[in-house]
Amino acid sequence: MPQLIISEKKARRNIDLFVRKAQNLNLLFRPHFKTHQSVQVGEWFCEAGVTAITVSSLPMARKFAGAGWKDITIAFPLNLPEAEDYAQLAGEISLNVLFDQPAQVLAFRDKLKHEAGYFIKIDVGYHRAGVLPQQTDIIDEIINAAGSCPLKFKGFLTHAGQTYSAKSVEEILSIHRKTANILQNLRQQYLRQHPGIITSTGDTPSCSLATDFDGIDEIRPGNFVFYDLMQLQLGSCRFDQIAAAVACPVVSVYPERNEALIYGGAVHLSKESLEVNGTSVYGLAVPFKDGEWSTPEGEDYLLRLSQEHGILKTQSSWAKALRPGDSVAVIPVHSCLAVDLLGNRDWE
Amino acid sequence: MPQLIISEKKARRNIDLFVRKAQNLNLLFRPHFKTHQSVQVGEWFCEAGVTAITVSSLPMARKFAGAGWKDITIAFPLNLPEAEDYAQLAGEISLNVLFDQPAQVLAFRDKLKHEAGYFIKIDVGYHRAGVLPQQTDIIDEIINAAGSCPLKFKGFLTHAGQTYSAKSVEEILSIHRKTANILQNLRQQYLRQHPGIITSTGDTPSCSLATDFDGIDEIRPGNFVFYDLMQLQLGSCRFDQIAAAVACPVVSVYPERNEALIYGGAVHLSKESLEVNGTSVYGLAVPFKDGEWSTPEGEDYLLRLSQEHGILKTQSSWAKALRPGDSVAVIPVHSCLAVDLLGNRDWE
Repeated sequence: MPQLIISEKKARRNIDLFVRKAQNLNLLFRPHFKTHQSVQVGEWFCEAGVTAITVSSLPMARKFAGAGWKDITIAFPLNLPEAEDYAQLAGEISLNVLFDQPAQVLAFRDKLKHEAGYFIKIDVGYHRAGVLPQQTDIIDEIINAAGSCPLKFKGFLTHAGQTYSAKSVEEILSIHRKTANILQNLRQQYLRQHPGIITSTGDTPSCSLATDFDGIDEIRPGNFVFYDLMQLQLGSCRFDQIAAAVACPVVSVYPERNEALIYGGAVHLSKESLEVNGTSVYGLAVPFKDGEWSTPEGEDYLLRLSQEHGILKTQSSWAKALRPGDSVAVIPVHSCLAVDLLGNRDWE
Repeated sequence: MPQLIISEKKARRNIDLFVRKAQNLNLLFRPHFKTHQSVQVGEWFCEAGVTAITVSSLPMARKFAGAGWKDITIAFPLNLPEAEDYAQLAGEISLNVLFDQPAQVLAFRDKLKHEAGYFIKIDVGYHRAGVLPQQTDIIDEIINAAGSCPLKFKGFLTHAGQTYSAKSVEEILSIHRKTANILQNLRQQYLRQHPGIITSTGDTPSCSLATDFDGIDEIRPGNFVFYDLMQLQLGSCRFDQIAAAVACPVVSVYPERNEALIYGGAVHLSKESLEVNGTSVYGLAVPFKDGEWSTPEGEDYLLRLSQEHGILKTQSSWAKALRPGDSVAVIPVHSCLAVDLLGNRDWE
């Protein structure tokens, strides 16, 4: 069966690089654990000195609380039916939640018996979640509904996910600058009444590429621990920083169409795709030997995926020489989704 | 958390309809269990009189063998590193495997101690796996390598997956007719030397829509048990035949952009998309009450998905009135992938 392969060495190097970057730039570092979702990888962060983390769901927060993490932000707007469970978790760890609707505040306050922090989620242009920066009426409504105790206003948080579809490093940096300005202005506007509030941002492209974080107090990248094909294409990482791949057996070869069938499909890699030269691709196959993958031999991309089937374009001479029973490593388009499919799902 | 909701009543009705269709048309019915992957849903098939099934991996075959199924075809070309495990399973049940490469035959024969059947996979134009119909040299090589005992040649098998991208019912039926002709010709060509060989096809659009199965002996659809948005768009089913949905909480609403955030993302629904009026969509939200979903109120499609976030276009007045804490049911684009993500993965 297809197997997730993690390079501990590369992942630890990625972690160390970010720990140092945050220290050098005087940034709080609260890495997102949704990418790896693994207690073991969490320990690598712990050993690198990380004490505060981000997750994207309550079950994930519980999992890592159970593994000993004491300071967790759930970076997903509070889900009303789970308000009581969020409140219970706030009694066990130092918990930060996310609001972008006054209704979320009211539901949570009702249940809360212990102190909890909250961030207001700001929509800086990704248009996924968050209050628009100019909607200060909603911001005020949230702050007023929250009151001062046991809820504590921690600041403004965003995810500038639009960097994932940027066409150049310059565009990523320009989005980052705009994001920082928006957050800085909001902090300035609310700081006097709410001393100590911070600003927090999280997308891996900006966090990897930017060197100027003026206006930003905390970074929460997650994807950087493994990186992937998408981050490589964006320029966020080098190939030798990619720390996750999926080892797949070659099942059949079709020399007449320069394609091969691998055992590795949508249930292993996800259907996340990437445009390469106008074609959607689902992964890049590279040589795999003795448990390690090497650099690409050519444009040996996965062109189509169904449930268990992957169709590999055999472009390089290495790929053309593949035979049934050989193994390849597939660099996934999006490591978060491939790891979710193949990694440990032990909190479910 | 997002929850998979299965309508037992609709699924059983879909099963019964196919059991009767196969009986009326004198077809062997070997439904594909990759869609539901559930022992419980398997029992509904059993109660409808089904005795032979299809799966797409060795672990899935083992799971259903363990649940009492005695006649299983693994409709994925034999994966060499698992040859010994395939051979062991052949000692426990009546197993059919799939070959499209002589190398697969040699690897399997070497390990096999019990009788096993094999089909030769034919590529009828989907270009995923299989021998092209005109590559009779490869077909002969496979048959010669297999010999006569303990391997038994069962016939020709295909999956005309190109029907999934057909633009009309007419196109699906035309692909189906071409597929049937190809299989019929091959059977004719090899029947004298190999009496008793059969032809087998499996895509849900053809199996749902066709009434003429001349040339085809066995059908192996899977998706029909739940159907989904893709099958609805293709015309393979009516809305009231769809038997799987994902119940998702509404987390936030953004009236200024006519969108809502639901807790339901790529790790729940998969990133399988569908083109609707030139836009990619990831699911359709419909009202959900007392554990049951109802017919669509409008074009309330999921426009974007990230790991846990789903962005819903609130087009209908029902959708515009949604509030945080409400629930919606999302009809998935592809039920096989959503069920794989949210259903039981207990054989892993």
